[in-house]
Amino acid sequence: MPTVTITRLARFSAAHRLHNPAFSDEENRRIFGKCNSPNYHGHNYTIEVTIGGTPDAATGYVMDFGDLDRIVERSCIDDLDHKNIDLDVPWMTGTRSTAENLVVACWRRLAPALMEHQARLVHLRLWETENNCVEYDGN
Amino acid sequence: MPTVTITRLARFSAAHRLHNPAFSDEENRRIFGKCNSPNYHGHNYTIEVTIGGTPDAATGYVMDFGDLDRIVERSCIDDLDHKNIDLDVPWMTGTRSTAENLVVACWRRLAPALMEHQARLVHLRLWETENNCVEYDGN
Amino acid sequence: MPTVTITRLARFSAAHRLHNPAFSDEENRRIFGKCNSPNYHGHNYTIEVTIGGTPDAATGYVMDFGDLDRIVERSCIDDLDHKNIDLDVPWMTGTRSTAENLVVACWRRLAPALMEHQARLVHLRLWETENNCVEYDGN
Amino acid sequence: MPTVTITRLARFSAAHRLHNPAFSDEENRRIFGKCNSPNYHGHNYTIEVTIGGTPDAATGYVMDFGDLDRIVERSCIDDLDHKNIDLDVPWMTGTRSTAENLVVACWRRLAPALMEHQARLVHLRLWETENNCVEYDGN
Amino acid sequence: MPTVTITRLARFSAAHRLHNPAFSDEENRRIFGKCNSPNYHGHNYTIEVTIGGTPDAATGYVMDFGDLDRIVERSCIDDLDHKNIDLDVPWMTGTRSTAENLVVACWRRLAPALMEHQARLVHLRLWETENNCVEYDGN
Amino acid sequence: MPTVTITRLARFSAAHRLHNPAFSDEENRRIFGKCNSPNYHGHNYTIEVTIGGTPDAATGYVMDFGDLDRIVERSCIDDLDHKNIDLDVPWMTGTRSTAENLVVACWRRLAPALMEHQARLVHLRLWETENNCVEYDGN
Repeated sequence: MPTVTITRLARFSAAHRLHNPAFSDEENRRIFGKCNSPNYHGHNYTIEVTIGGTPDAATGYVMDFGDLDRIVERSCIDDLDHKNIDLDVPWMTGTRSTAENLVVACWRRLAPALMEHQARLVHLRLWETENNCVEYDGN
Repeated sequence: MPTVTITRLARFSAAHRLHNPAFSDEENRRIFGKCNSPNYHGHNYTIEVTIGGTPDAATGYVMDFGDLDRIVERSCIDDLDHKNIDLDVPWMTGTRSTAENLVVACWRRLAPALMEHQARLVHLRLWETENNCVEYDGN
Repeated sequence: MPTVTITRLARFSAAHRLHNPAFSDEENRRIFGKCNSPNYHGHNYTIEVTIGGTPDAATGYVMDFGDLDRIVERSCIDDLDHKNIDLDVPWMTGTRSTAENLVVACWRRLAPALMEHQARLVHLRLWETENNCVEYDGN
Repeated sequence: MPTVTITRLARFSAAHRLHNPAFSDEENRRIFGKCNSPNYHGHNYTIEVTIGGTPDAATGYVMDFGDLDRIVERSCIDDLDHKNIDLDVPWMTGTRSTAENLVVACWRRLAPALMEHQARLVHLRLWETENNCVEYDGN
Repeated sequence: MPTVTITRLARFSAAHRLHNPAFSDEENRRIFGKCNSPNYHGHNYTIEVTIGGTPDAATGYVMDFGDLDRIVERSCIDDLDHKNIDLDVPWMTGTRSTAENLVVACWRRLAPALMEHQARLVHLRLWETENNCVEYDGN
Repeated sequence: MPTVTITRLARFSAAHRLHNPAFSDEENRRIFGKCNSPNYHGHNYTIEVTIGGTPDAATGYVMDFGDLDRIVERSCIDDLDHKNIDLDVPWMTGTRSTAENLVVACWRRLAPALMEHQARLVHLRLWETENNCVEYDGN
């Protein structure tokens, strides 16, 4: 019984800013550089959601890609797409909207939502630009 | 004497929102949809800047790609990258920050800046997402 | 009043086969090679639909990308996606399903559909593989 | 003695359909959706074949990329490219041609073929569209 | 009778250096910068070859992509791939191996070779890096 | 405390040749094929540098992508970009400039340089062409 992973890519466009109110303005500028720009900037993000399992004998599916897509939409994309990550997304409140923190927050929403559909999340990759990505596997 | 075009790609990450204060809130939502989201969203934009000319007999260059890059940076990217197009970019004030208006505004900055270096701008393409782009050739 | 073009990419996955019943089997194999394989093969196609116009003063749009997308879906993608171009698409009947013929057929469906929305189709590009594409501008 | 993996990408264009004769027509449509379309559809697939080993002291190769390419061609691509996976590929008979089943079937052909050349297959990734991929490592 | 263009991409990996023996070493370094590095550097080039014509009524082809590919291989790629453009390519001798000069030289080889097959070259695009490309249409 | 990896892509254009002076000319040609071409060829390489760690509670960073970029530049890219790997790069002397040997050599430079900044290198991937890549994780 082979274990196969399947990965679905989803995209969202969002604004954000890196800023820690516990730092002085000067510290924020020094630490976060242009990412601290006061009126926000933004990205076209791509998230790669990987689940693992055994292909079903009758369907050949680990999970239907359409079902996976809908869960990713409902758990993450609907809240993030065409939004301001710092102001509009309750589950990112009180944290810095770095790619690192965002990928962990997405995991914490996706893992239980997938579990409800008997799907096991095994890997997330989040691209912020074509040159920068982060990955998380739940540990 | 052959005429060759050379194209340089440059990238910037910016926030924006589509909103016309002359419209009611309801009209803004209906016309601009999720692009009217109040707290901004953002994109990784790519701009393709094309100039035309005859390769120089001694250098083989229409223009040094490094020089072209610096002019694009100074005329456009420095103002746009990690900025809010609606709030931070004086030359986009009073207009909707659609890709269409943005590509025309970039042309109006790039064409004279390139002219000062004896370079003739012939085409601009601006990607807002991997599925949407706009083009302008000065007419 | 600047004229700007806007381009929307859309994708579809379809099966097809190149075969002319007026040719002998041997001629079909010689002329179409592996594209004549009897039980069909298939591609992930990408179509780039370009329309031209003047950005509206109030909206900044040549046309809403969402509206353009819906017209492309209804005119072309719904008929082609997850279909057999030779067997399932009435408007491709009686012709070879080469990329050349397909891009012309898409033009003939898209141009009038866009015209109904006051949009002027100016260019189509159709990718069959990452190495092969065709273009048509209505002439 | 470092262990390095090398990965070669190969591409094929194929038709297929998801359908289980043990299901009713209605079940097939509900379970497989548009992938059950009766006359087949198709994709440009990309397979990423990864082998692991120690670079040879004299050549610096884990394996010549050209040799790896030829083995992938002979074991998989020649049978799949410009073919119907359900009708033309004996080693996919009697199974659903999902990406999951296809990647496992490719592994079972590639692993022994590579072994004959003293190469150890460690990972396969198969892209069905630009948004969907599956991976298998033999377990 | 519609006129359609078809485009084939081909790739080659080559070394080169920008240097004009009529310049002093200091001038060469100032004008060509790191591209003047004495022991050569290199690129993965991509060339996009576009021909125009009317799809044949019986085949639906402007030209078979395979035939086009073979002509591009024979006229350009065979001479350039895994070669040093400055030292190994007779038809680039005595000129600077800029992308501009290279695209014009490729045109001069491709246009007559295609003409022999009744094919009309209409456009060439040559990518030197993912950020730099040049285009030529024979004028 | 989650462990997240962050990956930065960097690019360089370099010339090289595969040749072992211990082999006869005929052996070199047979073993290395066109990669043995005497006057060098070249590639646009992409290196993906992955480090692992816990996002800092105050900044949300595993490491600032800008800092990572500078270390990669200083340790690897500055020595490789627009250079001949065989002739210009002291830390590649006496070895075959295969992708396999190059990725190991980059690891040996990057791992200690990152360690000085309390960053732990966990993975390197090096692309030589769009179809060939190698990976190394220090073992």
